[in-house]
Amino acid sequence: MSVTIVETTSHPIRIEWILGCMLGHDPDRTYRAAVIGSGSGGLTVAIGLGRLGHDTVLVEGGAVGGDCTNTGCIPSKSLLHAAADDLADPFGYTRAKRDDLAAEEDHEMVDHDRIHLVRGWARLTDRRDPHVLEVSTADGIVEVRAENLVISTGSAPAGVEIPGIPPDRISTTDDLFDSPSVPARLVILGGGAIGLEMATAFNRLGSEVHVVELREEVLPAMEAEVGSEVRASLQQRDVRFHLGCTIESGSDEGTSLRLSDGTTISGVDRVLLALGRDPRVDGLGAAQAGVQASPRGIEADARGATGVDGIWALGDVTGVTHTTQGAGSTGRQIVRAIAWPHLPRWGRLPNIPAAVFTDPPVAAVGLSPAEVASLPEESRRRYGVALPDIDRGYTDDVRSGFVAVDSERLSGRILRAVVVGPAAAELIGMFTMAIDNRITLRKLFGMVHPYPSYADAIGQIADAYALDVASDPRGEFAAWRRSRLSRRRSTD
Amino acid sequence: MSVTIVETTSHPIRIEWILGCMLGHDPDRTYRAAVIGSGSGGLTVAIGLGRLGHDTVLVEGGAVGGDCTNTGCIPSKSLLHAAADDLADPFGYTRAKRDDLAAEEDHEMVDHDRIHLVRGWARLTDRRDPHVLEVSTADGIVEVRAENLVISTGSAPAGVEIPGIPPDRISTTDDLFDSPSVPARLVILGGGAIGLEMATAFNRLGSEVHVVELREEVLPAMEAEVGSEVRASLQQRDVRFHLGCTIESGSDEGTSLRLSDGTTISGVDRVLLALGRDPRVDGLGAAQAGVQASPRGIEADARGATGVDGIWALGDVTGVTHTTQGAGSTGRQIVRAIAWPHLPRWGRLPNIPAAVFTDPPVAAVGLSPAEVASLPEESRRRYGVALPDIDRGYTDDVRSGFVAVDSERLSGRILRAVVVGPAAAELIGMFTMAIDNRITLRKLFGMVHPYPSYADAIGQIADAYALDVASDPRGEFAAWRRSRLSRRRSTD
Repeated sequence: MSVTIVETTSHPIRIEWILGCMLGHDPDRTYRAAVIGSGSGGLTVAIGLGRLGHDTVLVEGGAVGGDCTNTGCIPSKSLLHAAADDLADPFGYTRAKRDDLAAEEDHEMVDHDRIHLVRGWARLTDRRDPHVLEVSTADGIVEVRAENLVISTGSAPAGVEIPGIPPDRISTTDDLFDSPSVPARLVILGGGAIGLEMATAFNRLGSEVHVVELREEVLPAMEAEVGSEVRASLQQRDVRFHLGCTIESGSDEGTSLRLSDGTTISGVDRVLLALGRDPRVDGLGAAQAGVQASPRGIEADARGATGVDGIWALGDVTGVTHTTQGAGSTGRQIVRAIAWPHLPRWGRLPNIPAAVFTDPPVAAVGLSPAEVASLPEESRRRYGVALPDIDRGYTDDVRSGFVAVDSERLSGRILRAVVVGPAAAELIGMFTMAIDNRITLRKLFGMVHPYPSYADAIGQIADAYALDVASDPRGEFAAWRRSRLSRRRSTD
Repeated sequence: MSVTIVETTSHPIRIEWILGCMLGHDPDRTYRAAVIGSGSGGLTVAIGLGRLGHDTVLVEGGAVGGDCTNTGCIPSKSLLHAAADDLADPFGYTRAKRDDLAAEEDHEMVDHDRIHLVRGWARLTDRRDPHVLEVSTADGIVEVRAENLVISTGSAPAGVEIPGIPPDRISTTDDLFDSPSVPARLVILGGGAIGLEMATAFNRLGSEVHVVELREEVLPAMEAEVGSEVRASLQQRDVRFHLGCTIESGSDEGTSLRLSDGTTISGVDRVLLALGRDPRVDGLGAAQAGVQASPRGIEADARGATGVDGIWALGDVTGVTHTTQGAGSTGRQIVRAIAWPHLPRWGRLPNIPAAVFTDPPVAAVGLSPAEVASLPEESRRRYGVALPDIDRGYTDDVRSGFVAVDSERLSGRILRAVVVGPAAAELIGMFTMAIDNRITLRKLFGMVHPYPSYADAIGQIADAYALDVASDPRGEFAAWRRSRLSRRRSTD
């Protein structure tokens, strides 16, 4: 029997590497593409094109692998694992995971026979046809000519100056994983995904963790009940939250912080900024090439198209997505558009799930909470199942977490789903698949899940939907119809 | 905004309870249904019919909740959780989980206003219209008349006598969870799902565990690579395996066991029989009512129909399925057939995934390995991704596990999927949904998974499929066509 063992890469690029030995690039040649930045999005494009036989220049001024490998997903998830499993040297483990993968990726890029790695910082010019990049390398400025330019320069942690706190007391994820030791008292400014993941890790590592968040609830991209569930769980483990609040100033060389609500936190060892990330557009010369950019980043659509023909952008630098999986998805669209320019574009783009690896973890897919709220209230229903109430939660003594689904009445079309609880990032896949393939709650009714599993919550939600429709089909139809009519009227 | 919080039950029945106060049954009344046995399948039918307004008699001679609650899923998964989390009193935890749920289910059945609980052992008779049951209760024989009889008497652990081992040294899951202490040396006879789950738990609890299995590999319902992966992982934690082997005899009051390969294990504290389960058909009088039964159980189809009109059977007693989720699925079909006898039957039955909660856990769905093997080899491909090779496996230092998919060439139709690794019972849901809804690997290509997650293995498999088709579409088509032709010829 034929078994294909899938050759996996050390990155979510999923295309096997072909080892070769060409180094650098040929300045007289016009390449099919030049990719600026070797983060997960840039690597997806470069390796995808290379696999399809297109010679590509990859320009990287920093470390190959970008933020995902060097300062983002890989070290943060390694640290979370080391903390959860009580490993003896969590930072050593984290740095080894990061450094080994970075070295492997660097080596693979250097040795790749279709990808020509140029180490330096790229700048767009106004000479568009062929597109020309100027790259500042250690040996001076070199030119790279390519039919397609792909901007994937990523983002950097947003900074802020706080009076009275010396810079050496302030960290971002850029330097956090090189800390010599676990801070006894850590204050995290920002209660988004990165802030709460690090709160989860450092709490496990023994730090006293304070989270300072300007809004009234953490995880502001999610519905408030998600933030409150994760916050409650962290609070039970003694993480302190200061909501609706910011750090006003520091004193005593930054060891004492004054918050805007009047609280003082003293004996602070370190402040971690987790205020989001700024796109890396400075010095790129986007405007010279006619590419629109704003403080939110390069303007591009979810297929990576900028306003300029043959110039593409993806990932964090665009503001369209801020995740590795989002950059990867756009990257695949760009590979397709460059490799087969005459093929029609795919009709629908895949849905991009989000995941936060707190404890409990969170994952969500579909419309945003705000987009759901903008639909007529009568047209939809929200179903929620608490994980402690299902049998897997019962046997495993789970105390928190839930699965919630926003759906259209009558049809059972899934608008949004969110999971807070064990294996959230794995469970969300069923909803991603359902939304991608228009599988409604009606079709999920009768689907069988292993017993006992957390997936059973999905079955319970489908049952609740079916019960609603079976109990009052006319009522459901009437409500659905009225909301359709009101939507039509409001768009007249 | 309207939020429906799904009322969950303490069992996978998913229909809210309506509390009432009717007790027992009316002997002069013909009920819509009488259900024999209150395990997970019987409860699904009784509560489902009750919810739809049909008065149902539930006959139970033992403990309400059946094996799932009292000797199966609930105590075994509670013990696995207690062992994995190093709880102080694992048996106390397990018994509390079992007893609390059993008491709750008993209470709910007694108080249910549509379900009339009769405590006793039922026997079918030959007076078929209306169907009459004779029930031996503490107050003597009573008659129960119902339009539909539902047989859900479950199964009992298969027993075997081994010369030289006194019965009080031999356990089954019927008495295991009431053990006063953890045996220092435990010999498990049988390397199927139950045997290996208990090997996982008792190894964690500190027992020296031996597994004796007659076949050459454990988990014989799965492909051999699944058994060997789980076995290797347990072996690393010092579980001893004796394959192709059985226990021939005991000596020294059963503390010394002689195996068929000549090995002797001495100092044995306990032998656990995990040889499968026998359907409970004795004394049921199935033949009198014209219902066919064999040693494999009552003959019934996956919709619960026996050869006799108005007599149904489901779950372990039938041999069709041996899982709570399988019994639940058939139970829902029976509820539908009884509640709406004139509705056409559903076209296709849902696929029923299997899960084994070893460490690593296993889950599978679709055709059996033998069914896959019976298809022309040229028509299919097997794709496998090792979990240590994907990024979540890398950050979390996972050493074993894989996802494997058997698929039809060209079309990418998924025939079977198996997951060995973290969250297997949650990940398998994507494959269940895909097979149920005919979502091919072609459609899964481009689907986005959270990064880093184990779900990413599914994306890598879809990519490998797409690469095969894109690399040689003519070859894939030709192979697929030849296999179609050969299949047609072989069925001529």
